[in-house]
Amino acid sequence: MPKISQRGIDMPSSPIRKLTPLANEAKARGVKVYHLNIGQPDLPTPQKALDALKTVDRKVLEYSPSQGFLSLREKLQRYYRKFRIELSVNDIIVTSGGSEAVLFAFLACLNPGDEIIVPEPAYANYMAFAVSAGAVIKTVTSTIDTGFSLPPVEKFEELITERTKAILICNPNNPTGYLYSRAEMNQIRDLVMKYDLYLFSDEVYREFIYTGSPYISALNLDGIENNVVLVDSVSKRYSECGIRIGALVTRNADVRRAVMKFCQARLSPPLLGQIVAEESIEGTEEYAADIYEEYVERRKYLVDGLNRIDGVYSPIPMGAFYTVAKLPVDDADKFCEWCLSDFSYEGETVMMAPASGFYSTPGMGRDQVRIAYVLKKEDLQRALFILEKALEAYNKK
Amino acid sequence: MPKISQRGIDMPSSPIRKLTPLANEAKARGVKVYHLNIGQPDLPTPQKALDALKTVDRKVLEYSPSQGFLSLREKLQRYYRKFRIELSVNDIIVTSGGSEAVLFAFLACLNPGDEIIVPEPAYANYMAFAVSAGAVIKTVTSTIDTGFSLPPVEKFEELITERTKAILICNPNNPTGYLYSRAEMNQIRDLVMKYDLYLFSDEVYREFIYTGSPYISALNLDGIENNVVLVDSVSKRYSECGIRIGALVTRNADVRRAVMKFCQARLSPPLLGQIVAEESIEGTEEYAADIYEEYVERRKYLVDGLNRIDGVYSPIPMGAFYTVAKLPVDDADKFCEWCLSDFSYEGETVMMAPASGFYSTPGMGRDQVRIAYVLKKEDLQRALFILEKALEAYNKK
Repeated sequence: MPKISQRGIDMPSSPIRKLTPLANEAKARGVKVYHLNIGQPDLPTPQKALDALKTVDRKVLEYSPSQGFLSLREKLQRYYRKFRIELSVNDIIVTSGGSEAVLFAFLACLNPGDEIIVPEPAYANYMAFAVSAGAVIKTVTSTIDTGFSLPPVEKFEELITERTKAILICNPNNPTGYLYSRAEMNQIRDLVMKYDLYLFSDEVYREFIYTGSPYISALNLDGIENNVVLVDSVSKRYSECGIRIGALVTRNADVRRAVMKFCQARLSPPLLGQIVAEESIEGTEEYAADIYEEYVERRKYLVDGLNRIDGVYSPIPMGAFYTVAKLPVDDADKFCEWCLSDFSYEGETVMMAPASGFYSTPGMGRDQVRIAYVLKKEDLQRALFILEKALEAYNKK
Repeated sequence: MPKISQRGIDMPSSPIRKLTPLANEAKARGVKVYHLNIGQPDLPTPQKALDALKTVDRKVLEYSPSQGFLSLREKLQRYYRKFRIELSVNDIIVTSGGSEAVLFAFLACLNPGDEIIVPEPAYANYMAFAVSAGAVIKTVTSTIDTGFSLPPVEKFEELITERTKAILICNPNNPTGYLYSRAEMNQIRDLVMKYDLYLFSDEVYREFIYTGSPYISALNLDGIENNVVLVDSVSKRYSECGIRIGALVTRNADVRRAVMKFCQARLSPPLLGQIVAEESIEGTEEYAADIYEEYVERRKYLVDGLNRIDGVYSPIPMGAFYTVAKLPVDDADKFCEWCLSDFSYEGETVMMAPASGFYSTPGMGRDQVRIAYVLKKEDLQRALFILEKALEAYNKK
C-alpha cells in the first residue's frame, strides 16, 4: 500500500473540529451545546442576496472567468474605495473563499522552505496552507497582558533569516479581535520595506471595528505597493460563509500573473456564489448597520460577562467577533473537552476553541480559549452562565 | 520588490486561454468565432437542478461540512452503484470541482520530487497541479495511429524510478476521447500492483461512451483497492461546470484522512453548488438520455466531417466529447493563431486548441488540434466548412 505524503502527515488537524465528535456525543445524550467555538454567524444573509438566487435565469450554469466576473470586480473596486483604497479592477482576483486566496498567495510568492513571520495566536489554517505550499511559519508571540497588540519589532527581526520572505497579519485579528493602530501598521510597513518582504494581510473582518479606532489597511500603506497581497472574503460581512467567495488583491503585476495561472488551473471560482456576492456588496448599507449594532451589543455582553466571572480575563477586542480569554484552569484543552464529555448544567453546556491550537509555540495559550460572539444575546448570556457553572464544577473536582 | 516563487514561474499557462486575446480581437472586428476549443457544453443544465435554486429557503448561507453534505454523498453512493462500484459514504469527499480533487490527491499522496506517469496527450492542468504540489509529470506518448490507445506497458516501465509514485489516467480521455479496454485496465492494474503505485483515475466523462464498449472504472479493479484515487465531477454530465462540485473517492483510509485535513483547511465545498448537484444526480435519467443522444449525433457529424476534409484525420473517439485530429499544417499553434488573427470566411472563423499544449514531450502533436463537440450540429457543420476553407487558404499562402 503506497504511503501518504509527508505534508499529508504534517498537515494540522483543525483545532476546532477535533472537539466535534465530543459535541456530537453530548447532543446525542440530549445535552444542548452553545457553540462559542465557531466563526459562522447566526445572522441572516441579506435578503437581497438570497432573492438573487430565485431570479437566476441562466439555462446553463457555466464556467465563469478564472479571475471572476468583471461586474463583481467592479463592485469590489467601488467597495474598497470606501476605505480610501484605489484599485484597478485588474488588481482584484476572485477566489473560492479567502482560503484559496491565502493558498494561492503562498504558492505564487513562496518557495518550499521560505519562511513567513506571523504574530501568534493566529488563525490555525494559515499553518495548513503553509504546509500545503511547503513554506514555514515562524511566530512572534503577542500577549494577553497587552491585549494582543503587535509584538515589538525587535522580536520580528530576531526571526529574520535569508529564508524569510513574508510577514502575515490578520487585521482585525482572528482569534484575538485586536486591531492594529496606525503606529503599528507603520512599524510593519518599515519592516517590510527594510527587508523587502511580502506583506500578506488578511482583512476579512474590516467591517467589524467597534472602538472608533481607524482601520488602516495594508493597501493604505505608502511605499510597499508591490509587497502587499490582501486576502479578503465576503463570508463574514454578509453572513454567507457557504458561498465560498473571496478575493486576492495586489498591485504587484508579477504576483497577479503568477496567481492567475493557479486560477486558470482550477478554471473558475463558484458561479452561484459570485451571483450572491454581487447582490450583497451594494444596496445593503442598512443591513450592514443593523449587523454592526448587533455585534456591538454582543461584544459588550460577552466581554462584560466574561470579566465578571471569577478568575476569567478577556481583553476588550476592538474588532472581528472573537476574543481570547484567560480561564482559571491549568489546561484549557482538557477543560473544553470536559465541558462536552463530562459536564452539563440543566441539560446544557458550552463548546469553546482551546487557544493552544492558535499558537505554534509549544505550551503557549494553555489557559486560554477563543470565544466567538456569533450567537444572539440571550444565548450568549445563558452560555456565560453555564461557563461560570462549569468552571466552578471543574475546579471543585 | 520581492520575487515570485519558482513554481509561480514554472506554472504552465493554459494552452486554450492563450488564444483568448486573439479571439476577443477577432470578435471586436465583428468576426463570428466558432468555439471548438472549449469543454463547456452548450447544453442546458437539468431544469430540475435550476429549479432547486429557486426554492432554497435558507436564511443563512452557511458553511457546509468539509467532506460535503451527507445527503449528497449518499446520492453519489447510489450513483456509483449503477456502475457496479460499491462504496461507503465515507469513501466520498466532495471537492470544489474535479480540479480540487486532483490537487488534494497530489498534495496528500506525493512528496515534492515524486513522479507521476501520465499517457500523453493529457489534460493540460494536470501539469499545473503537479507544479503546485512540487510533483513531476513523466509522460508516455500515445499515438494517433493507434487511436491513442494505451502505450505498451514497457514504455511505462522504462520511466519507473525510485521516485515514481503514481500513474494518472483520464478515462474516457480528455483530449483524445479514447476509452481504455478491459485488457488495458488490467495492464494498468498489474503495473500499479507490481510497483505499489497510486492510480489516480479521472473519470469525469464516464457518462459519455458511444461505442458499446464496457466502461471499466479504476474502482472496478480487484487487488488495488488501496491504490486507487478517483477524481470525479458533476460539471460535464449535467452541464453545470460553473457550480464547482467534484469528488475525490478512495477506499484508502489513510489517504482520506490526509485529504480531509486539506478539506478542513479550506472549510467547505460550495454550498449552493451542492444543492444544485444533489438535484442533478437523481431523477434526471430522461435528461441524461437526451444529452447522450445529442452527443452521439454530434460526434458522428464531427468525425465524419473532419475525415472528409482533404488531409485531415481524426480517429473515432469512443467517449468524452473531444477528438484530437491531425491537420495538413506544419504547425498547428501557428495555424490556430492565424485562424483568429488573419482569417475569416464570410465573417466567420474557428477557434481550436493546439494539441501541443497537451503534450509534455517537445515537438509532439505539432500538426494536431483538440476539437470539442459541445456545439449544436448546425454550428458544427458550419465550423467544419470554415475549417476546410481555412486550411485551403493557409496552405495557399
